[in-house]
Amino acid sequence: MSEKIEFVQRENLKEKPDPTDLSFGKYFTDYMLSYDYDLDKGWHNLQIVPYGPIEISPAAQAIHYGQAVFEGLKAYKHNGEVVLFRPDENFKRINHSLARLEMPQVDEETVLEGLKQLVDIERDWVPEGEGQSLYIRPYVFATEGVLGVRPSYSYKLLIILSPSGSYYGGESLSPTKIYVEDEYVRAVRGGVGHAKVAGNYAASLLAQTNASKLGYDQVLWLDGVEQKYVEEVGSMNIFFVENGKVITPELNGSILPGITRKSVIELANQLGYEVEERRVSVEELIESHKQGELTEVFGTGTAAVISPVGQLKYGEQEIIINNNETGPVTQKLYDNYVGIQSGQLADPQNWRVVVPKY
Amino acid sequence: MSEKIEFVQRENLKEKPDPTDLSFGKYFTDYMLSYDYDLDKGWHNLQIVPYGPIEISPAAQAIHYGQAVFEGLKAYKHNGEVVLFRPDENFKRINHSLARLEMPQVDEETVLEGLKQLVDIERDWVPEGEGQSLYIRPYVFATEGVLGVRPSYSYKLLIILSPSGSYYGGESLSPTKIYVEDEYVRAVRGGVGHAKVAGNYAASLLAQTNASKLGYDQVLWLDGVEQKYVEEVGSMNIFFVENGKVITPELNGSILPGITRKSVIELANQLGYEVEERRVSVEELIESHKQGELTEVFGTGTAAVISPVGQLKYGEQEIIINNNETGPVTQKLYDNYVGIQSGQLADPQNWRVVVPKY
Repeated sequence: MSEKIEFVQRENLKEKPDPTDLSFGKYFTDYMLSYDYDLDKGWHNLQIVPYGPIEISPAAQAIHYGQAVFEGLKAYKHNGEVVLFRPDENFKRINHSLARLEMPQVDEETVLEGLKQLVDIERDWVPEGEGQSLYIRPYVFATEGVLGVRPSYSYKLLIILSPSGSYYGGESLSPTKIYVEDEYVRAVRGGVGHAKVAGNYAASLLAQTNASKLGYDQVLWLDGVEQKYVEEVGSMNIFFVENGKVITPELNGSILPGITRKSVIELANQLGYEVEERRVSVEELIESHKQGELTEVFGTGTAAVISPVGQLKYGEQEIIINNNETGPVTQKLYDNYVGIQSGQLADPQNWRVVVPKY
Repeated sequence: MSEKIEFVQRENLKEKPDPTDLSFGKYFTDYMLSYDYDLDKGWHNLQIVPYGPIEISPAAQAIHYGQAVFEGLKAYKHNGEVVLFRPDENFKRINHSLARLEMPQVDEETVLEGLKQLVDIERDWVPEGEGQSLYIRPYVFATEGVLGVRPSYSYKLLIILSPSGSYYGGESLSPTKIYVEDEYVRAVRGGVGHAKVAGNYAASLLAQTNASKLGYDQVLWLDGVEQKYVEEVGSMNIFFVENGKVITPELNGSILPGITRKSVIELANQLGYEVEERRVSVEELIESHKQGELTEVFGTGTAAVISPVGQLKYGEQEIIINNNETGPVTQKLYDNYVGIQSGQLADPQNWRVVVPKY
């Protein structure tokens, strides 16, 4: 830590929300971390300040040209301790995303230290119920007020915190219905699909709405070139269990390198599964389902954790996975993953980072 | 007009910038148009207010998920009149962009009426020098402060005004050097390339920076599927003159339907040129240049108007167009286009819309 973090206290703390009605990303805590960048000073003015409206220029480049990236991670409470899950991976990835949009790199340790101090102050906001956590949203956006299309000269990093229930609102492990999207495309190699940039999400909304209208929970994106190979699901990476093997599309430049994806691959290996990262076509899935070899499908993501898929719709074809029930591999991975996250199981890889009491 | 526009006056007007040092999108006028949307009221609260910082939620969805679209057009002053150029086309297109990102449609006439009243108040800000204009930036962004990925329930539309010189800073018609981008991709069919959405621009910055480092002014994007066919240049559409014919890539779902593009096609037809909208491969360009048939290349866009291209670099090949000089077709289109815009030539299509004195 090269920089002392200033703490600007608020006069009155907020009332905390009803823990049985948290939903996702709706309530925010009392404070946020704030960090500024300009060409002269670089990153400076690291502060913990009251959560509240921010002032921006009407010409701020983030609003006009989408120069904005984000991350998502979670804090859990167990036995009175507050724990972050692999936060170093998130700050590594935010630098990857920042580079893709020509935004300045952050010092990963400085920001992680700031996050720990923030979460320490807000430890009473970390919910303890089943499937609940404190969702953490670090993000960086361009603030310069000038309309030429070029990288901004100034930026703001904020970290905001939201006590949250499960992402899809329902049971943690109730299987979802997925629509294979064969018209709209999320990303293509050479684009920004591998980075966690704001514009990717706006671009996904129309397909998601169309799928919802047809009764599906999420969209499964295909590759942008041939529209044949599976990429990812809505806000999750996707996994298949075929003949007992755990298979997921390989990172190809248009798929987001999920931290849950990476962790689930590592965990599956440790649990003795054979794991393959490779191209997976929709046709392969339909065919292997017909042969009885495709036994489970699940998505992974920070918000959704591990989420079973019960149904896949592709054109006129609809396949039911594992009788629309959570399969044994999905269940085992989920139990182990959530066990480590929450602190109920051992953590041999040191994925859990305890938030110190400062 | 269904709605009366409230005018909130500021105490002191700003000092106007030196008209010889305007550059592009750097100075802003005294007022802006502001319009709010929420699910209950729809669009409401149409106001002309002092230009200045705006307050947003730190969770505003535009910043996190890129739900933001914009437009660009210009006002010119001639013989004491202030004139807009085809503003109806911009508000038609903003609705097209809004639809792609699942944002609410605006009433085109209401917003155009608001713009006229705003520009009337700011008519002293419209510069009169050669190549100068009042650049007009309408934009809409998501304001709801919630982190679930779904269309926002609230939005803000703003129109800000910036007295501007020529976009590239130099002479209006000095030929640019273009780098044909064969690694990064701007857009693909099924994506959002045909809409004027914020994220498209952030995604373009890295390729632009790389091209600048190699000494090129702009990037020429290729199609996202085969990376063979020409799409558009940086913030412009692109035209070629081959054997006297005016050729431009056809709109294919990943190319922005430029209003200058459309106007130049119409104008070229009126001036008696044969115009073709079709697929154009880079290989065709290289070959027809070799045959002496590719005589001119130029870009079109609101900011850049009509901008000749003097050089194209593709892989190891570099071709010089028309001895790096502005060709006769480009010059003729430019003179006629700018003549109509500025009011120095007749306007048989009624492209010019005079801003009334209210």
